[in-house]
Amino acid sequence: MGRAYDTITFLSDYGRADEHVGVVHSVIRSIAPEVAVVDLTHDVAPRDVRAAGLLLARSAQYLCPGVVLAAVAADPSGERPAVAVEVGDGMSVLVGPDNGLLAPAVAMVGGASRAVALTDPGHHLPAPGVPFVGRDVLAPVAAQLCRGADLAELGASVDPAALQPGILPLSREEDGAVVAQVLWVDRVGTVQLNVDPDELAAFGDRVRLRLGDATRSARRDAPAGALGPGEVGLVTDPYGLVALTMSGQAAADALGLAEGDELAIEALDDDGAAPTAGLTTPVRLSGGPATKGTPSP
Amino acid sequence: MGRAYDTITFLSDYGRADEHVGVVHSVIRSIAPEVAVVDLTHDVAPRDVRAAGLLLARSAQYLCPGVVLAAVAADPSGERPAVAVEVGDGMSVLVGPDNGLLAPAVAMVGGASRAVALTDPGHHLPAPGVPFVGRDVLAPVAAQLCRGADLAELGASVDPAALQPGILPLSREEDGAVVAQVLWVDRVGTVQLNVDPDELAAFGDRVRLRLGDATRSARRDAPAGALGPGEVGLVTDPYGLVALTMSGQAAADALGLAEGDELAIEALDDDGAAPTAGLTTPVRLSGGPATKGTPSP
Amino acid sequence: MGRAYDTITFLSDYGRADEHVGVVHSVIRSIAPEVAVVDLTHDVAPRDVRAAGLLLARSAQYLCPGVVLAAVAADPSGERPAVAVEVGDGMSVLVGPDNGLLAPAVAMVGGASRAVALTDPGHHLPAPGVPFVGRDVLAPVAAQLCRGADLAELGASVDPAALQPGILPLSREEDGAVVAQVLWVDRVGTVQLNVDPDELAAFGDRVRLRLGDATRSARRDAPAGALGPGEVGLVTDPYGLVALTMSGQAAADALGLAEGDELAIEALDDDGAAPTAGLTTPVRLSGGPATKGTPSP
Repeated sequence: MGRAYDTITFLSDYGRADEHVGVVHSVIRSIAPEVAVVDLTHDVAPRDVRAAGLLLARSAQYLCPGVVLAAVAADPSGERPAVAVEVGDGMSVLVGPDNGLLAPAVAMVGGASRAVALTDPGHHLPAPGVPFVGRDVLAPVAAQLCRGADLAELGASVDPAALQPGILPLSREEDGAVVAQVLWVDRVGTVQLNVDPDELAAFGDRVRLRLGDATRSARRDAPAGALGPGEVGLVTDPYGLVALTMSGQAAADALGLAEGDELAIEALDDDGAAPTAGLTTPVRLSGGPATKGTPSP
Repeated sequence: MGRAYDTITFLSDYGRADEHVGVVHSVIRSIAPEVAVVDLTHDVAPRDVRAAGLLLARSAQYLCPGVVLAAVAADPSGERPAVAVEVGDGMSVLVGPDNGLLAPAVAMVGGASRAVALTDPGHHLPAPGVPFVGRDVLAPVAAQLCRGADLAELGASVDPAALQPGILPLSREEDGAVVAQVLWVDRVGTVQLNVDPDELAAFGDRVRLRLGDATRSARRDAPAGALGPGEVGLVTDPYGLVALTMSGQAAADALGLAEGDELAIEALDDDGAAPTAGLTTPVRLSGGPATKGTPSP
Repeated sequence: MGRAYDTITFLSDYGRADEHVGVVHSVIRSIAPEVAVVDLTHDVAPRDVRAAGLLLARSAQYLCPGVVLAAVAADPSGERPAVAVEVGDGMSVLVGPDNGLLAPAVAMVGGASRAVALTDPGHHLPAPGVPFVGRDVLAPVAAQLCRGADLAELGASVDPAALQPGILPLSREEDGAVVAQVLWVDRVGTVQLNVDPDELAAFGDRVRLRLGDATRSARRDAPAGALGPGEVGLVTDPYGLVALTMSGQAAADALGLAEGDELAIEALDDDGAAPTAGLTTPVRLSGGPATKGTPSP
């Protein structure tokens, strides 16, 4: 017997228009009526494994111990069976496809202690045709874990190191600049970067952002409300990462940045000139005023 | 006293933007705090009784025993009062408008044993004006059923056979073809038909679809991932019905099919020619390549 | 020790696409696992404090006693700290920003008995950067109130009269007309006005609506289904307020009305003429037929 859990955190790309989310809740409740299901979100863009994996990693430290049921782009053919991954010495188990979705969250909480492929059909619902993996495999397995089923009952053991790795892009240093990637654009257009505030410790209060051929100055750690119109701020966001923000405007739109885009952060002298030699061409970005701190033509 | 239930499954066309869904939850919790409410969906298109009825029927076998609260196009005038329909000898009660919404699910689980019109205002909340049927009638009645109220207390008995019938279109045979109707297009464009796989048992691995004047060949029971670009597959879907699917493309879009549309499925000879005489005009459907298996001009 | 509560009603403008709503649920469950969270809605338009405040006021009388967690346009800078407001002699506590969001609901239930600013960081989660107020402040405070924390522990006492007032626009009389404001347009286009049915008691069965330069007649208290095509009805809505409705058509679209718009309701003689002197210019409103009861040119 394994440990019993009382919470399932449920994440999917099912949307809410059809009955999929509700049916998964029903299947769980039929098997484990005492378990609470917390819906993380079901509006991940269909098959966007990268976004869902990052979302789960951002949430990880705030989730209740228990089972995570993550269903984004599960393989209905079963050729690549879904997996259950135990973390925190059994404090939680993540159940989902073996496509890298679970990997960032597993890494966030210190790695996997055990993993199994969900190959035992005795723990699944019978499917009349193409399986609905969430309903027929993930939900009954998650519910049975809550009732004390041990990982080992669920299928063939898998080496955690052999699981599909996730996408957690690392920032890098290049000629004194920090080259970053956009991890996430939130509802109001704040741009989360894969940068720890410490990486910018040597920089001054103002830095230069290089986005393709365009440059733009930005202000570090400005108190909320202190940004002028069109001014870009670099703040430490609620997840402890560096984010680009603007006042009364979606930074992502103003800077033309989308998830996965790259940009460089460079130091500026106190007078706003770039410390490294070379001409900077001032560029008017779409939606924003001319870059401050660089000479206008 | 009737039976007590501990789960209410809730389906509506209220959307999530306003407070309607939350208020119904609140009313239920005020009356029956120990009951769990499972939200099936609230994003049925407003007044789309057909889609909601089919959605409920698809879900029926996966729902927890208990009360189903279904609110789609309820008549606020009360001229046609809402009903409660008991199924499975009291295992579940469906509460909702008498407009055919409940009928497909009731049929799926073997028919109704009892029904009442919800005519007793003593079981409703007082409404200051036009009633909000979900809040003022369906929620309090569902909650009271969970607390053991018997159907007979809720209003006048109704002959289950006199309830508004639902729309469950049947497929038919015509000149050796199966004439089918599109029941449902899901989020990724899979097209569910009102066809049981057995109806196609006499057909070969390839069949011909006739959609209005257009024809298109399709492959039966191809394993997932085996379909080539633009190829249409006929699979048994997670509900046990025949569905049209494509690889990396929404079949509904490629074939120009919407819910309620009709099409015919015909046998093809093994060489891809139609077994019945007659010329087939190859037609390029919007969004898809020229039909395979028919001669190109 | 304060009173313990078992229900948190949760309202926000977070949307459902990201993990915010789920993370708040998780934080609550981590602190107070026995508490039920009822989601009122999370799809308030970002920063629409007015709409959210009215939504909460409409819902107030149907909510379970307990804690209300309302997060719309909370100030992440903390310059204006969030507050907890006790109502009904402790029957409920509303937790949210001090920006007028809570005020209409507080007024609806008879005013506040106590209030505090949530200034004690010991009751918050540590935030690594810019706080996520819902996750770091409102959720832990709401959960701790459910576990019996007293308001006085949470921060500095605030005079309820010093809280930011809400927007509850009052109708007014002007030259015998009732000048009203649109409070809310619901999903199907019904237009709720800030008018009590009693204010129209002296008017006849037909009234005239004046919308800017346009006029239109409307029928009072017509039974549902009795309105002809293009005819406007004035009904008492499920909240006890006067609302404009049409049959098979969104009244808001046909009349060109949006939330916050003003219009006047005037008496008409029984023959449809305006009782006060003066020429009425017949105006064809967008989407609707020519105004009935006024002469056509």
